[in-house]
Amino acid sequence: MPQCYILFLFFFIFFSSSSHASVQDFCVADLKGPDGPAGYPCKSPANVTVSDFVFSGLAKGGNTTNIIQAAVTPAFVAQFPGVNGLGLSMARLDLAPGGVIPFHTHPGASEILVVTRGHITAGFVSSASTVYLETLKKGDVMVFPQGLLHFQVNAAKIHSSAFVSFSSASPGLQILDFALFANNLPSALVGQTTFLDLAQIKKLKGVLGGTG
Amino acid sequence: MPQCYILFLFFFIFFSSSSHASVQDFCVADLKGPDGPAGYPCKSPANVTVSDFVFSGLAKGGNTTNIIQAAVTPAFVAQFPGVNGLGLSMARLDLAPGGVIPFHTHPGASEILVVTRGHITAGFVSSASTVYLETLKKGDVMVFPQGLLHFQVNAAKIHSSAFVSFSSASPGLQILDFALFANNLPSALVGQTTFLDLAQIKKLKGVLGGTG
Amino acid sequence: MPQCYILFLFFFIFFSSSSHASVQDFCVADLKGPDGPAGYPCKSPANVTVSDFVFSGLAKGGNTTNIIQAAVTPAFVAQFPGVNGLGLSMARLDLAPGGVIPFHTHPGASEILVVTRGHITAGFVSSASTVYLETLKKGDVMVFPQGLLHFQVNAAKIHSSAFVSFSSASPGLQILDFALFANNLPSALVGQTTFLDLAQIKKLKGVLGGTG
Amino acid sequence: MPQCYILFLFFFIFFSSSSHASVQDFCVADLKGPDGPAGYPCKSPANVTVSDFVFSGLAKGGNTTNIIQAAVTPAFVAQFPGVNGLGLSMARLDLAPGGVIPFHTHPGASEILVVTRGHITAGFVSSASTVYLETLKKGDVMVFPQGLLHFQVNAAKIHSSAFVSFSSASPGLQILDFALFANNLPSALVGQTTFLDLAQIKKLKGVLGGTG
Amino acid sequence: MPQCYILFLFFFIFFSSSSHASVQDFCVADLKGPDGPAGYPCKSPANVTVSDFVFSGLAKGGNTTNIIQAAVTPAFVAQFPGVNGLGLSMARLDLAPGGVIPFHTHPGASEILVVTRGHITAGFVSSASTVYLETLKKGDVMVFPQGLLHFQVNAAKIHSSAFVSFSSASPGLQILDFALFANNLPSALVGQTTFLDLAQIKKLKGVLGGTG
Amino acid sequence: MPQCYILFLFFFIFFSSSSHASVQDFCVADLKGPDGPAGYPCKSPANVTVSDFVFSGLAKGGNTTNIIQAAVTPAFVAQFPGVNGLGLSMARLDLAPGGVIPFHTHPGASEILVVTRGHITAGFVSSASTVYLETLKKGDVMVFPQGLLHFQVNAAKIHSSAFVSFSSASPGLQILDFALFANNLPSALVGQTTFLDLAQIKKLKGVLGGTG
Repeated sequence: MPQCYILFLFFFIFFSSSSHASVQDFCVADLKGPDGPAGYPCKSPANVTVSDFVFSGLAKGGNTTNIIQAAVTPAFVAQFPGVNGLGLSMARLDLAPGGVIPFHTHPGASEILVVTRGHITAGFVSSASTVYLETLKKGDVMVFPQGLLHFQVNAAKIHSSAFVSFSSASPGLQILDFALFANNLPSALVGQTTFLDLAQIKKLKGVLGGTG
Repeated sequence: MPQCYILFLFFFIFFSSSSHASVQDFCVADLKGPDGPAGYPCKSPANVTVSDFVFSGLAKGGNTTNIIQAAVTPAFVAQFPGVNGLGLSMARLDLAPGGVIPFHTHPGASEILVVTRGHITAGFVSSASTVYLETLKKGDVMVFPQGLLHFQVNAAKIHSSAFVSFSSASPGLQILDFALFANNLPSALVGQTTFLDLAQIKKLKGVLGGTG
Repeated sequence: MPQCYILFLFFFIFFSSSSHASVQDFCVADLKGPDGPAGYPCKSPANVTVSDFVFSGLAKGGNTTNIIQAAVTPAFVAQFPGVNGLGLSMARLDLAPGGVIPFHTHPGASEILVVTRGHITAGFVSSASTVYLETLKKGDVMVFPQGLLHFQVNAAKIHSSAFVSFSSASPGLQILDFALFANNLPSALVGQTTFLDLAQIKKLKGVLGGTG
Repeated sequence: MPQCYILFLFFFIFFSSSSHASVQDFCVADLKGPDGPAGYPCKSPANVTVSDFVFSGLAKGGNTTNIIQAAVTPAFVAQFPGVNGLGLSMARLDLAPGGVIPFHTHPGASEILVVTRGHITAGFVSSASTVYLETLKKGDVMVFPQGLLHFQVNAAKIHSSAFVSFSSASPGLQILDFALFANNLPSALVGQTTFLDLAQIKKLKGVLGGTG
Repeated sequence: MPQCYILFLFFFIFFSSSSHASVQDFCVADLKGPDGPAGYPCKSPANVTVSDFVFSGLAKGGNTTNIIQAAVTPAFVAQFPGVNGLGLSMARLDLAPGGVIPFHTHPGASEILVVTRGHITAGFVSSASTVYLETLKKGDVMVFPQGLLHFQVNAAKIHSSAFVSFSSASPGLQILDFALFANNLPSALVGQTTFLDLAQIKKLKGVLGGTG
Repeated sequence: MPQCYILFLFFFIFFSSSSHASVQDFCVADLKGPDGPAGYPCKSPANVTVSDFVFSGLAKGGNTTNIIQAAVTPAFVAQFPGVNGLGLSMARLDLAPGGVIPFHTHPGASEILVVTRGHITAGFVSSASTVYLETLKKGDVMVFPQGLLHFQVNAAKIHSSAFVSFSSASPGLQILDFALFANNLPSALVGQTTFLDLAQIKKLKGVLGGTG
């Protein structure tokens, strides 16, 4: 048996040396490095700790004292470097009474939402312009296919909240109103490409800080 | 030398039989089959002809006698079965004077546009709400990254046209106005999730045949 | 203006016909069809309803009256056909006091866990045999990279629960004890390939219903 | 209403800060950086302008005063950094009367060709050695599946031209004659592996600058 | 302890039922089903046996009594259904003295070759027409990047053999001579697109059974 | 004809310049660079030689004088930089009489094994806990689907050996015993998550150098 121990030691030495250089099961983001099409460069495994794989920023909801009475708190690769390259990330939604996450898309990911408090009315629209709309209760789950316009609205009289997960470490977030009204796209061009009235466009540009 | 011929014949027989069952370099769509996440089932190679890989439907522009004075003619997998599974498709844009392809996204593909006639003003908006806008001349090329809102407007006094290619055999096409106004999504909910005025919503719903 | 309405109508007709055949932004699983490497065939879009994208089976925890005092309730493609082809799925974990999700892997997916009640001690082991171990509080999030052995243990005196999401619609679930002891793999071979003592193997085979 | 404006401002601040670090919908190539398997590192979004997404180099055809009386002008990632990571690129073909794009493959991409002037005879050969051959008119489209040998020949008495798009930002281009005859591969080895006569090999090596 | 056994039984029942429908870690090809872009439909798990994952067809070399004095024996998905969807397959090469696997490409896969007997001279050519050429001894390994022209020649006076593995279950195999000369592509067109002399073309067409 | 030569020269110059910057058919790993989710940065093509694509380290078996009487010799990207980004790698297994490759997984790859000497008993276990077990003879091939627990045992009285190939340049290697017993995971926690007896755990921890 003592001999066995020594032999096992050989075993240990053998495998660890032979597989040494290729031991990289994950690629924790080095956020200082330049990112590429597949994500950030990997932090050296020697510097990786469990804290790279744990994120506490979703424990509290974001501040909903704003016009949409809602908050989106992301745990994307930029906040949570452990998801780099794994094709997965999360976020937390908080909706005060009357709160709304307005129409938006995630250009690079599908999304699953699970309600953790209250009731949420959620919907998405397909390329065929069909609406898929449901009021979700606590524990209900809904999936929003990649790239399609969708929204969430508080359907309860209390604060509602949800966790959402994405099929990308960096799903993107394009909010429709911001895309149309919070930049310098000339109002006439917005009108021409949305068929909205000029007065409507200028009103929302004013509110959202857009120019032109 | 005659012996050589016979031997070559052996060679021929050998390879064709041994590689017979795995000869499938492409997967022409059998559009009658049920599609799946990766595309349509493959037509039997025995029935594939060159016409599966050729499409003539983009030779003429679509009819631009409509409110947008523009037409989009697709050569997606549904029209052009040879692209099935190849991660690539095309379409043709035609814009009469004053023509507009209104704000839209392709949920599952990036796009490259090349102007073949006239001038086209094209733009896209990023998640950061930055506008990337350019007036393109004949032969100019512009790329629209996956899933982002973009549009094209005729910038010439003549008919303009372009070819666009996509990084998917089935890129999808979600036109913003149709998503918002051409279905039964309740007007109040549209207002709540877009911040548009109710009058504006009802006007466009009326025009586009939406209800609610 | 009435003319405009009519023209818009043309617009409507034009786009819907031209893009008709390629409108498929999602691929809801037809679970009766034969699945393939990329998932199940798509249900006909005409038969898809919002209920395909919504799942209520995670609202209640599974029954934890079992030896592990824990339950895993999946919302994989087999339970939740709307996720087919989208590279995403979910599950719910419930751990009674003392509950354990024993060592397991998901052969085809990475996982993110978010604690919704109680405290959970979770850990995974890398190819380099490094342990990444943390006790998570409510709202904490932890990621488990693809294919690595991991576990979850209730660290609270109360019932704890969590939602987990996966980077696949069909992540798989290989529970270590079941793989080793709940089948007909001969005990001697298990011993040879795990270095466990024969008595230990036979004991667990007995408990888990394994033979040989 | 003035209060509303202020609240909207909050909304604006909230979203832009929370999603700040993860706003990266594209990855414009930093061509000075080292490329990787998925492409080049991303240029900092702050330095990205619309000119990164626009390329004018295809507006004019390449010089066809050469032996093949043809020219290929690429808009691959090296010329057009906006396509980095998007799985898409383009090129322009110009064929003077009698012009030929000789047999070649793109090791990493499928291709779609659209004729914009003249007539082009194009063909590809499958693994089963079947020829798919067609003479294409202006506006006709043809797809060449990934990795297969193909060619294009001017079929008109005038200059013909085409745009081609690829399912990769870096499709590669292996011209058969260059692979066989424009390098130092020993003639005897070329003969052994192609069954071409030595005289033929030496003749083409001489012409194309090959040695050995 | 007896109670424990019963509880374990619960555990057993629980997991097997809850994970029942999603247990599919592999997708053994049902070769009678229509294949799709991602491979064949999956055989029902109930009918899968270990023989689906084992293939004995590479144990013996193919017949090398042919003009190339060589044989390629594939274990692609068509011969070895267990590799379906796994992105991996194999083949065996046998080269009698003087044997040659002539110039060819695999349109959809990279390849690694390991010599198991004799010596093999192998080479590939890049898009830049650079030759990478080496004579490999028993146990040497060489990689051929996807889609590039390559060849193998027996460099020993004895029979040489090798195993090759591919990064696809269906890598394809396009043999240059067959693509050019073993079909009905008109000789003039072959000449125009390869710069080979007509006499050379007609000679090889004659040998390989091509017409035109 | 001399004119022809000069024209060919033009042809040569034309193509090489126009395609110059995008000629990169492979991405040999620069192992000094930081790796990313898709692999290592590419070595400059100017510095790439054939030796990057050839590896001789599998010609001899590893040392089997250890407790498992077996050795695994990898040709992963860390040892064999030419496979970077190509989705393929290899290794060699050597099993002395009585030798065992104990239960392990490759978190990121499927595997094909081909026996080159002796007899090997190999098996894997599915998520459904079904065992797929076979004794393989020389030349037999077996596939192990991604992420599943598997093992190999020498079934001959002589030294047996095999080559294995993987569907990843960096497949990872998680050996079950090492994951459980060769680190500082507390014994009580190992017991709780494996149902092994504490004595068994402490015994194997002792042997494998684990603590806690």
